[in-house]
Amino acid sequence: MTALKTDATTNVNSLPPAESRDRVKQLMQHLQDKICDALEELDGVSSFREDAWEREEGGGGRSRVLSEGGVFEQAGVNFSEVWGEQLPPSILAQRPEAKGHGFFATGTSLVLHPRSPYIPTVHLNYRYFEAGPVWWFGGGVDLTPYYPFAEDAAHFHRTLKAGCDAHHPEYYSVFKHWCDEYFYLKHRQEMRGVGGIFFDYQDGTGALYRGPHPDGPAAAYSNKLGVLEPRSWEEIFAFVQGCSETFLPAYLPIAKRRRDMSYGDRERNFQLYRRGRYVEFNLVYDRGTIFGLQTNGRTESILMSLPPLVRWQYSYHPEPNTPEAELYEIFLKPQEWVKWKPSTSENI
Amino acid sequence: MTALKTDATTNVNSLPPAESRDRVKQLMQHLQDKICDALEELDGVSSFREDAWEREEGGGGRSRVLSEGGVFEQAGVNFSEVWGEQLPPSILAQRPEAKGHGFFATGTSLVLHPRSPYIPTVHLNYRYFEAGPVWWFGGGVDLTPYYPFAEDAAHFHRTLKAGCDAHHPEYYSVFKHWCDEYFYLKHRQEMRGVGGIFFDYQDGTGALYRGPHPDGPAAAYSNKLGVLEPRSWEEIFAFVQGCSETFLPAYLPIAKRRRDMSYGDRERNFQLYRRGRYVEFNLVYDRGTIFGLQTNGRTESILMSLPPLVRWQYSYHPEPNTPEAELYEIFLKPQEWVKWKPSTSENI
Repeated sequence: MTALKTDATTNVNSLPPAESRDRVKQLMQHLQDKICDALEELDGVSSFREDAWEREEGGGGRSRVLSEGGVFEQAGVNFSEVWGEQLPPSILAQRPEAKGHGFFATGTSLVLHPRSPYIPTVHLNYRYFEAGPVWWFGGGVDLTPYYPFAEDAAHFHRTLKAGCDAHHPEYYSVFKHWCDEYFYLKHRQEMRGVGGIFFDYQDGTGALYRGPHPDGPAAAYSNKLGVLEPRSWEEIFAFVQGCSETFLPAYLPIAKRRRDMSYGDRERNFQLYRRGRYVEFNLVYDRGTIFGLQTNGRTESILMSLPPLVRWQYSYHPEPNTPEAELYEIFLKPQEWVKWKPSTSENI
Repeated sequence: MTALKTDATTNVNSLPPAESRDRVKQLMQHLQDKICDALEELDGVSSFREDAWEREEGGGGRSRVLSEGGVFEQAGVNFSEVWGEQLPPSILAQRPEAKGHGFFATGTSLVLHPRSPYIPTVHLNYRYFEAGPVWWFGGGVDLTPYYPFAEDAAHFHRTLKAGCDAHHPEYYSVFKHWCDEYFYLKHRQEMRGVGGIFFDYQDGTGALYRGPHPDGPAAAYSNKLGVLEPRSWEEIFAFVQGCSETFLPAYLPIAKRRRDMSYGDRERNFQLYRRGRYVEFNLVYDRGTIFGLQTNGRTESILMSLPPLVRWQYSYHPEPNTPEAELYEIFLKPQEWVKWKPSTSENI
């Protein structure tokens, strides 16, 4: 281990505590358990099936899937803990200090595909890496509605912001814009949904934004802050724990207030069509998915994120002045959802 | 233009004729017309809708889609002719002589998604490039059945082989193995279907195989041949024209003999599930699709290849001793289909 450094241009800030791996693993497993319990209760019809698996190079995981439920057409919640001799080149490019060192990684991820087009799809992922002299946390959560309910997007973002604000007043703004940058389908010129928060390479140095867009809003906002004071492992661990605890209060109220709304073929067809964008994002852009598929990840666990039924339709465009058009015009573009105020109309 | 070279290690063999671009363009447009006419006649219910489009950087195309037909759930047939100042880096890596030169490219591609699970999905693409001192042809055709009819796979391959054999006795073997290499889903350890033929960078030099697998069967077979005599532009043009003419006789008889077979939910569900592999291949591996999406291709034309309705199902495995299992065990692995002989049973 090299000497400790505290400037933001290096990756090493403070040593993790001796029991760091176990503590994060327990957080991730506890998160999986707690979320699965709550989703089963909400669903009311189906329950999770678990597949425990091992990875030849080291480690393993437990994949849980709930299929054909009352609320969820499919819900997948994965926990994994893996180790090996070398991080893949795509990660080493961002963390050159890890080169030549073994690595440890643990995380929990989920994607929920509700049956009702009025309940949004949601994705969560929190993860932790150690590799030689470096360690970092990453993750986030983002919401993909099919129909435009501004109060849902506002509730989701406000809950995330409250969770972030409890740890640092600047976290939400940087990580919200980073999320808008990351979940973007360039070939459609659309966001995947209304976003949420996303962060990576949180290693205790003062640099919040470490994404690929030096001119993007997250970078601009992060740079404007200057460099934060270095943060300890404990501070960032507590932040990730806090974030993970906001998931259920951010999502469950939305699912509950939409699940009994009736819908017809039009809404179902639009949902199936929009699910195609989820597939396109995950297979074309999502680095975790692509990396997993091209190496030796467990394919069935990686592709649990794909929707159970999907439509593509050549050259579809929503009719003007419809809820579907409103989704495209307002909800698939970056918005400051925390500032939304209810008006006489349901939608903004 | 640099001096002509004829050894296989360079890319320049002979000059194309003065009217090369127009002749290939006419071949490609004629191919699109002829195939669309035949497919409409076969379908009997629906007809093609055409969208003509232009490309800002130069050129354009005509995209034709037949939807909700009698035989075809969706059929997409694209023609395009484009030019620009520079080929993308992914192609320049293979054709360094083209660097700093403008380029011209024209081609026709199609993907047919039949309604009946007993009719295979099929893909065709033929294309031609000129860029500074280099020119080359590429393309191929491959068949993706959902149910295992060995006589269909054998008919398809024999028709392609006859088309190849009319031009060179070694073409079929090299391009058949290259096709097996290319249409392979590493993360599933499956071929996309029963293959067909695939080739790229046919520039008149004597090297047939120019793929990425120096130890693969196509390379091994090609190397065993030594280097062929250099071929003229006219020879390769005639070969591509010949290949393109084998498409209808290779595919139509299969569609015709399967279209009236009745099927149920089981077969339909399996078809929708297997269509997911088509999506995975096109979005994760297909270089043309990925390149098109990441640059300024016409997204709706590129993604016309995706099926209209698709299922994913966590951890699906076919029951042993079923037609679905036979597809996995025999048809999704490389086979010498031209050697198949009918036995008392329909399937091998």
